[in-house]
Amino acid sequence: MIELAFAKDTNGLLPAVVQDYRTGEVLMLAYINQLAWEKTLETGKAHYWSRSRNSLWLKGETSGHVQLIKEILVDCDQDTVLYKVEQLGGAACHTGYRSCFYRKVTGDALTVHEQERVFDPTAVYGAK
Amino acid sequence: MIELAFAKDTNGLLPAVVQDYRTGEVLMLAYINQLAWEKTLETGKAHYWSRSRNSLWLKGETSGHVQLIKEILVDCDQDTVLYKVEQLGGAACHTGYRSCFYRKVTGDALTVHEQERVFDPTAVYGAK
Repeated sequence: MIELAFAKDTNGLLPAVVQDYRTGEVLMLAYINQLAWEKTLETGKAHYWSRSRNSLWLKGETSGHVQLIKEILVDCDQDTVLYKVEQLGGAACHTGYRSCFYRKVTGDALTVHEQERVFDPTAVYGAK
Repeated sequence: MIELAFAKDTNGLLPAVVQDYRTGEVLMLAYINQLAWEKTLETGKAHYWSRSRNSLWLKGETSGHVQLIKEILVDCDQDTVLYKVEQLGGAACHTGYRSCFYRKVTGDALTVHEQERVFDPTAVYGAK
């Protein structure tokens, strides 16, 4: 097992950057703990630790938009990982955009730069 | 001023993913606080908060390997930013590799997948 520097964080969490393995687009950032790391390596599907729910999170468990691991890179300090994934369903963001980074800084404001939503969040997750 | 969710973290820090604006390669991940965010927007050069030194960090202040901001993306929760940069000196990592993610998971081990170091860290930072 490859050891990561989980001990550096008081909550035992490290950031995972998620990139589309074909286009190189950064899709999202989430956090992993030791358990999420092991589950990801075991299953080949991206697992994270949900800070809001305080529980293991298989990305796509509700939406079906699972991330299949194609490659994992580890940084110099072993405190950040990079998952190169195939994003099933075509969109990583719960808002329906392909990437969570669908807005860019334009002067003093944020503007949406993605073309369109891939899915309707209400249809996928239900009305909130 | 664009407001980020610094309050979500007890230390007021959020991750910044750094990507080469031409190739899309992820170069590194570092942390920003409100001050680093403002300095980055003001100067067009990537600033971070050094957790080890507990101080504002202009990337490249020692090496000259400054990161010129080309575009900034913000994620859905406004708790992660993505800097698309021109990496002066050709390498973001203090080890001399172009990217801090110069190793990949290969079975139970990490193997170096980058071609070669861009610079000799001893020459840039001095002997340690």
